[in-house]
Amino acid sequence: MRIGVDLMGSDRSPEVIYKAAEQVAAETEHRLVLLGTESVLAEAASFADVVPCEQEILMEDPPLLAVRRKRKSSMLTGIRLLKEGKLDALVSSGNTGAMIAGATLLLKLLPGVERPALLANLPTISHPVACIDVGANVDAPPEFLCQWARMGAAYQRCRLDIEKPRVGLLNIGSEALKGNKETREVFQMLKNADLEFVGNIEGRDVFHGVVDVLVSDGFVGNVFLKTAEGISSFILDYLGKAFEHTSAPEVQRALTELNRQVNYAEQPGALVCGVNGVLIKCHGFSSQRAFYNGIWGAIHLAENGLITRISETLKTA
Amino acid sequence: MRIGVDLMGSDRSPEVIYKAAEQVAAETEHRLVLLGTESVLAEAASFADVVPCEQEILMEDPPLLAVRRKRKSSMLTGIRLLKEGKLDALVSSGNTGAMIAGATLLLKLLPGVERPALLANLPTISHPVACIDVGANVDAPPEFLCQWARMGAAYQRCRLDIEKPRVGLLNIGSEALKGNKETREVFQMLKNADLEFVGNIEGRDVFHGVVDVLVSDGFVGNVFLKTAEGISSFILDYLGKAFEHTSAPEVQRALTELNRQVNYAEQPGALVCGVNGVLIKCHGFSSQRAFYNGIWGAIHLAENGLITRISETLKTA
Repeated sequence: MRIGVDLMGSDRSPEVIYKAAEQVAAETEHRLVLLGTESVLAEAASFADVVPCEQEILMEDPPLLAVRRKRKSSMLTGIRLLKEGKLDALVSSGNTGAMIAGATLLLKLLPGVERPALLANLPTISHPVACIDVGANVDAPPEFLCQWARMGAAYQRCRLDIEKPRVGLLNIGSEALKGNKETREVFQMLKNADLEFVGNIEGRDVFHGVVDVLVSDGFVGNVFLKTAEGISSFILDYLGKAFEHTSAPEVQRALTELNRQVNYAEQPGALVCGVNGVLIKCHGFSSQRAFYNGIWGAIHLAENGLITRISETLKTA
Repeated sequence: MRIGVDLMGSDRSPEVIYKAAEQVAAETEHRLVLLGTESVLAEAASFADVVPCEQEILMEDPPLLAVRRKRKSSMLTGIRLLKEGKLDALVSSGNTGAMIAGATLLLKLLPGVERPALLANLPTISHPVACIDVGANVDAPPEFLCQWARMGAAYQRCRLDIEKPRVGLLNIGSEALKGNKETREVFQMLKNADLEFVGNIEGRDVFHGVVDVLVSDGFVGNVFLKTAEGISSFILDYLGKAFEHTSAPEVQRALTELNRQVNYAEQPGALVCGVNGVLIKCHGFSSQRAFYNGIWGAIHLAENGLITRISETLKTA
């Protein structure tokens, strides 16, 4: 397989992404393909193929304009290669809006999907829960959330081999009538869908591992994800400082394990879900470790036939 | 002063609340007043006055019906005593909807407030941020959020003595155009309001202490609060277990300090904001420690003239 890695668009530097790719390349037999502007690719990588690109999409570029005017950017070149079958997956930390718009336009949506959504993994006391949508759509009619719930279930079948993933609706109380007009409508639709729907889930219960898929609109999902990541970082930073001079092995062991569990960087990036291709979105501020896990996430999903699985799930709906 | 404590409505037992009240009574000169059904008040408390009540509002009671039919409940009796000036503040962990409906009906709204909101404190690397609304209103027009922002600012002036509290709007990005239609409208209104408005704030940045007041509608605010509390508990539980057998004093010291910072139970309860009386709502699942801090929260706000401060702020709007 060939996995594309977009070197542009990071809040840090292309170097961080380059190093992560180098690290993955040393551990996999799959071929990595680096995409970036010529200046960034000046030093040819021995561990990967390179695709020099003339343009770069910036964070402040309006998504639709970027997609129209920057076809030669690393991001859109990568998406085009994915479409042409010259890549099996693509990882990028660039402009989220442009990525979703570009993927929708070039890769096309899978049959049965009206709008793509972002799926991200969040740790729980058991396995990570797939949260969808975490930011692609700030407003969404109930039927979109049902489509996303199905995609989330297919993702968990693919990633964690869970036959019947439990789906929960992110809400402010567990009773059917809780929430606003939208969530009440979604609740009824999910109840009648061919899904293992377990009902409304409150933000605090998600971490108890009671669901495998958590569905919400992109606004609420984004607040949820960033809050969870924010308070985790807050606590990890605190502990890092508090135990800076503690050499007790059990303390360092526990911190390493906690970090592995709750640090966003240990998750396999977010997935642009619903388009015909494996497209992983890493945070703009991602560390080398986060890119490393993002590239591995892309490899695993491509290996496990994610797109076929999602398509099958949508077909049976 | 006389501080009412509602013994009913806890997910745990009246005993937990009773013990918290006993603990506070030993440390304050203010008089506590316990409200509960006769069976709960069977043993007269030497440390407090008691008000036996005939009814109890249950969690599953529809709020408006409860307010109409259970006037003799501990919660509504407490609110009535607050209105009559026989109590200076009231603390309850009962049915939130009934509490807000009862307060609106009996205490009345302060001039300039169209709907009450719930205000809760959340830890940051500096001081706690006042989050409003965290669940009273699932939908709200922009002008309500502006009223709440003003009340939040008055609260922080009262609680932390911050002259010009910085107000942020909970959103999914920092730029003015981020978010949905509602947040964009609120953004413009807050920008033009007589407030120290610092713009949109993402969930993860709240913990960096960049704002003193965080405003949102009750749905998003509730998701935010419960997520933050949920992941904090998740990590605190993890650390508690991991370091169960670690006796190193610096480890226990760091954990105690972290717990003090991020445990919901260390915060002074939520405030029913916008009604003419100091009304503190504790979580239904509150521990003794949480009630202890809730009662102290009520005492401090009453001592510092919260209602006068909020009224003044609203008057100058």
